[in-house]
Amino acid sequence: MNHDLSTLIQSILPADTGAMAHAQARQAQLTKPAGALGDLETLSVRLAGVFGTPTPHPRGVAVIVAAGDHGAALDGVSAYPPEVTPMMVMNFLADTPCGAGGAAVNAIARTVGARVYVMDAGVNADLPDHPQLHRHAVRRGTRNLRVTAAMTREETETLVLAGAALARQAIADGADVLIPGEMGIGNTTPAAAITARLLNADPADVTGRGTGVDDRTLAHKVAVIKEALARTGTTDPLDVLAEFGGYEIAAMLGVMLQAAASRRAVILDGFVEGSAALVGAALAPHLREYLFPAGECAEIGHAAQLRHLGLTPMFRLGLRLGEGTGGVLAAPLLLSAAATLREMRTFEEAGVPT
Amino acid sequence: MNHDLSTLIQSILPADTGAMAHAQARQAQLTKPAGALGDLETLSVRLAGVFGTPTPHPRGVAVIVAAGDHGAALDGVSAYPPEVTPMMVMNFLADTPCGAGGAAVNAIARTVGARVYVMDAGVNADLPDHPQLHRHAVRRGTRNLRVTAAMTREETETLVLAGAALARQAIADGADVLIPGEMGIGNTTPAAAITARLLNADPADVTGRGTGVDDRTLAHKVAVIKEALARTGTTDPLDVLAEFGGYEIAAMLGVMLQAAASRRAVILDGFVEGSAALVGAALAPHLREYLFPAGECAEIGHAAQLRHLGLTPMFRLGLRLGEGTGGVLAAPLLLSAAATLREMRTFEEAGVPT
Repeated sequence: MNHDLSTLIQSILPADTGAMAHAQARQAQLTKPAGALGDLETLSVRLAGVFGTPTPHPRGVAVIVAAGDHGAALDGVSAYPPEVTPMMVMNFLADTPCGAGGAAVNAIARTVGARVYVMDAGVNADLPDHPQLHRHAVRRGTRNLRVTAAMTREETETLVLAGAALARQAIADGADVLIPGEMGIGNTTPAAAITARLLNADPADVTGRGTGVDDRTLAHKVAVIKEALARTGTTDPLDVLAEFGGYEIAAMLGVMLQAAASRRAVILDGFVEGSAALVGAALAPHLREYLFPAGECAEIGHAAQLRHLGLTPMFRLGLRLGEGTGGVLAAPLLLSAAATLREMRTFEEAGVPT
Repeated sequence: MNHDLSTLIQSILPADTGAMAHAQARQAQLTKPAGALGDLETLSVRLAGVFGTPTPHPRGVAVIVAAGDHGAALDGVSAYPPEVTPMMVMNFLADTPCGAGGAAVNAIARTVGARVYVMDAGVNADLPDHPQLHRHAVRRGTRNLRVTAAMTREETETLVLAGAALARQAIADGADVLIPGEMGIGNTTPAAAITARLLNADPADVTGRGTGVDDRTLAHKVAVIKEALARTGTTDPLDVLAEFGGYEIAAMLGVMLQAAASRRAVILDGFVEGSAALVGAALAPHLREYLFPAGECAEIGHAAQLRHLGLTPMFRLGLRLGEGTGGVLAAPLLLSAAATLREMRTFEEAGVPT
């Protein structure tokens, strides 16, 4: 393994259990009935562990949308043609009357005050230069996982480190909460293959409709994933990622690893993000302590990922878009959880009898 | 009925179904797979109906926290003594290092950029003058609903109109989204009585633990509610509210009616807010079209209220605090739903093949 990557993985330390114990004790003294903030209290205590203080103060929120194409898309596993990937990248960057970007992630990020970073992780197109486009492509889309390894191991590690570098930039720009997001027509196929292998699950149980394929295409998609799984027996996490792809999943893994190494919180959006998290948790067991799932997404297999990671999502709005949209939506919930610990008075401070 | 109140009720018009149809059509053209934003799409279409445009632009968010005391609290229906109500009012108004207010609603409102209005609707204490405290008390707490009508009909209508007046002020200050919130030790007791009567439900099925009472106190609470229900057979919505109380529930009803009459969105927090909504929906059938429930709260009976209103909550975080906390937490989700309609480009605008 690349030296920088193994260093990054080793630098992910456990959450601060001392700060968590203090936060837990503080929640019990705040001016509200014990437990009345429900899951928000659990989230706040976990944030104390991430930031190493019983009064965490996360500020900036960044969503890093990594885009890549997939050889498998030519196999007809998506409801959309692969040309949609570069067009959506241009949509993320477009000038609109409301500001930069005309996609869902842009509209939601503007609403909640999150900054959007767009990364070409391996799009199959000549993307024009753009000040907001971070170019890290090493190839125009992955190879077809059905017939060969989607990425080389070297390409994989390069993209993980590129994601980590962009996360460091976002952190330098002020981000304390990082949201990996993705765009890539066909990418629920490699995500399902990774999930099936790392959870040792039947592909049919973790393969969903993605952008909305019909029954016939879904059956074909499961068959493609089964062929890919039959092609290699590897269980090494980075080899699994390399074999099935894709470049944007590798980049998201890099974002997660760097955020955790830098003791920042990661909001986990949907199923494709979840596949990167499974690889990450296999590489660095403490990674999960930095992950906060947004919603349970409509894609089957997502619930199995979260069960494996031992994490509970914040809402169930039936989102299945990707782009990090669910993660950005969840950011105010996470910031609010931290605010209760930090800004609420205790019963003693408020002079309220208990 | 007071002339101003009947005028207010009559001025609540149906949601704009034309705008909703346009919004629905627009959602299908936005740059995402059809339906991929899940419940956010439904919320966005409902907002189009509220604001009368397919591209709604709600801006300011206001939470109006009404506080009142309850004669029933002397019957021992809460885990906290009634003195907590005024102390929490002072906590809502306190100067803290982070800004005004040391309660959960203040911390969350600061995080999401909502403005907090605090109203004395009938607290049993000498509250000091404070520039942020809106004084509308007509009595220091309700009478005990177990033995007599908690409020007179005149007091009830006065408080409904006071809530409406404060909502008009919040709207004049820029609020497009209004969140009624409450503080009142003992107030899940009148809320359960109202819910049992208006839903024709068994009190045991809609009475919960409130601030966290034990089994014995819960049994006593149900007995108090049964005595109150046995005392009067009225089903007239305002009489039901007057009989069981309380002043802050009447004020929240006024906030909801005024918001709907002014075509603003209302986020509905928990069980006590839900009881005000049941009274409102009985008075003005179109009110429900302006209501957006935040979370399903942990209090039993809340789910029955939402079923009756035909509304689906946005999250399930197990909150059971009140103060409007859940509503404020949900505000960014609602604003984001509107932003998708307003700020996302269509496939045609983005030049993406469909």
